[in-house]
Amino acid sequence: MIHTNDQVLDLFEAALSQMQTPEEPELLYAPIIYSMSGGGKRLRPVLLLLATEAFGGNIDEAMPAAMAVEVFHNFTLLHDDIMDNADMRRGKPSVFAKWGGNVALLSGDAMLITAYKHLARIASGSLPRVMSIFNDMALEVCEGQQYDMDFETKEHVSVVDYIQMIERKTSALLSGSAMIGATLAGAADEDIKKIYRFATELGLAFQLQDDMLDSYGDEALGKKIGGDILEGKQTYLMVQAMSRATAEEREVLRTTHTREDMSDAQKISTVKALYDKLDVKRATEQQIELRFERALAVLESLSIGAERTTHLAEFARNLMGRKK
Amino acid sequence: MIHTNDQVLDLFEAALSQMQTPEEPELLYAPIIYSMSGGGKRLRPVLLLLATEAFGGNIDEAMPAAMAVEVFHNFTLLHDDIMDNADMRRGKPSVFAKWGGNVALLSGDAMLITAYKHLARIASGSLPRVMSIFNDMALEVCEGQQYDMDFETKEHVSVVDYIQMIERKTSALLSGSAMIGATLAGAADEDIKKIYRFATELGLAFQLQDDMLDSYGDEALGKKIGGDILEGKQTYLMVQAMSRATAEEREVLRTTHTREDMSDAQKISTVKALYDKLDVKRATEQQIELRFERALAVLESLSIGAERTTHLAEFARNLMGRKK
Repeated sequence: MIHTNDQVLDLFEAALSQMQTPEEPELLYAPIIYSMSGGGKRLRPVLLLLATEAFGGNIDEAMPAAMAVEVFHNFTLLHDDIMDNADMRRGKPSVFAKWGGNVALLSGDAMLITAYKHLARIASGSLPRVMSIFNDMALEVCEGQQYDMDFETKEHVSVVDYIQMIERKTSALLSGSAMIGATLAGAADEDIKKIYRFATELGLAFQLQDDMLDSYGDEALGKKIGGDILEGKQTYLMVQAMSRATAEEREVLRTTHTREDMSDAQKISTVKALYDKLDVKRATEQQIELRFERALAVLESLSIGAERTTHLAEFARNLMGRKK
Repeated sequence: MIHTNDQVLDLFEAALSQMQTPEEPELLYAPIIYSMSGGGKRLRPVLLLLATEAFGGNIDEAMPAAMAVEVFHNFTLLHDDIMDNADMRRGKPSVFAKWGGNVALLSGDAMLITAYKHLARIASGSLPRVMSIFNDMALEVCEGQQYDMDFETKEHVSVVDYIQMIERKTSALLSGSAMIGATLAGAADEDIKKIYRFATELGLAFQLQDDMLDSYGDEALGKKIGGDILEGKQTYLMVQAMSRATAEEREVLRTTHTREDMSDAQKISTVKALYDKLDVKRATEQQIELRFERALAVLESLSIGAERTTHLAEFARNLMGRKK
């Protein structure tokens, strides 16, 4: 039996609720429990388990690896929140805000080690290959985070720079998860390469859509508009706009978020007016479509036949908030 | 051929100098190179390699694991320096001081992952067992660090609490390294348990001696006296003194480091006068001897015969700064 996305999520949540975490020292382990039970969409473990089943693997045997990628993901959030001084996470106080930087730091370290503890529970025959994928993935995520921080002070970030950054920061964990799932199912090398490309393209589409919704999301749906603009963050829209702007417009794009004589609403409308003028919304939409279509096309090219990829395609559509 | 301590150190340094680290992003990887080339005694990899050879294993095959424990150790230093706000490390600016907290945090994360990358290079047949030892060891180090931080604000730290803390913070990495070395050489389970006890006891002796030298070291040898006392740190001397003191003396021990009406020299002499009165120097020396003798006795009880343990005994004596 192949499980649907919802069923896989339920199975993962059930396994997660069985996870044993030591009680002492409390300041090391309580933040881990808090973080892991704080919700989230469990995208990475679900993708891993769907990939396993698509290639005929057993979901129970892949569960330790699914736990590993979810614990790893939550580790990155703990440490990102320190670096970003972020008080809130998933609508609740972040570990950083609740317990302080030192606790978030050390608990995060313990989470990263805990991720490897889960990984070590997979069948020993698969361990070397899976560990190699996991390690490369984990380092890429760190690289992505560093490039993202570098961009805060970098004079010129090209569109290519930006795509390479989010390939690491956002896609790597998805593509690594998909590859691990396929590897555990004994998929052919060619298929593993393809599932990597599927998840890489999907991750890019997802991140670009996230960037776009910051400027063009539906406030009626509770989406707060303009956060990235006010932070002066590099996004796909910003780097596209910079690549199309005159020298004068670039100066406006670069400095608006620092203007003390403007309200937040004025800053947002100033930058968005330039985005509109430079047609970056359409450019972003096109790029999202391109990446999403590529992802689905790769899925169809897998050796296992279209019917076995149904649930992965559903995952992709769900991720992008699409019905079909 | 079995190598001496010095030869093993040379072999390790040679392997370390061959270590490839990516160049970009620079702020992620340059601190790793800086940290790994900053010296240090390489105690843990040397112990690991000596344990391998003692049990008839091959030093080349154990080298990736030796790299893993050394990279892990340096990772803990990067993150400890953030938590302790420490500007100096091995006589040079710490990564934290040189590049800031965010860089030390993220580079440290990348180092922890890099440690696992080295570990993944060992023979696949040994990987599950070695990884299990490594993971447990790594978590114990985090637990030790958390207990140590807990002690800063804890009203009463018992001698037992203190020993359990340093078993994790100091001994775990030594005992884990020794166990990994023995495991890679295919040592019998009974011997692996013994080598664990050897390194645990040795680690305790080493830490207690370090505690003692802070109060009773030889200033002529360049040892600065009283740093722990001025920080109000829990040490073996302090917890022993607290366990022997009257209520009035305990108050003095607890509060002297906070006194604004005293010079540093006065604070140190006040606390040391109590240490002398309560005879904690002798208690500490006895405990050091007890642990050190136990370590050597365990070595002699290994199934491999005394002549194969010569270099491990030499390691133990070197660590304690003893000729014989």
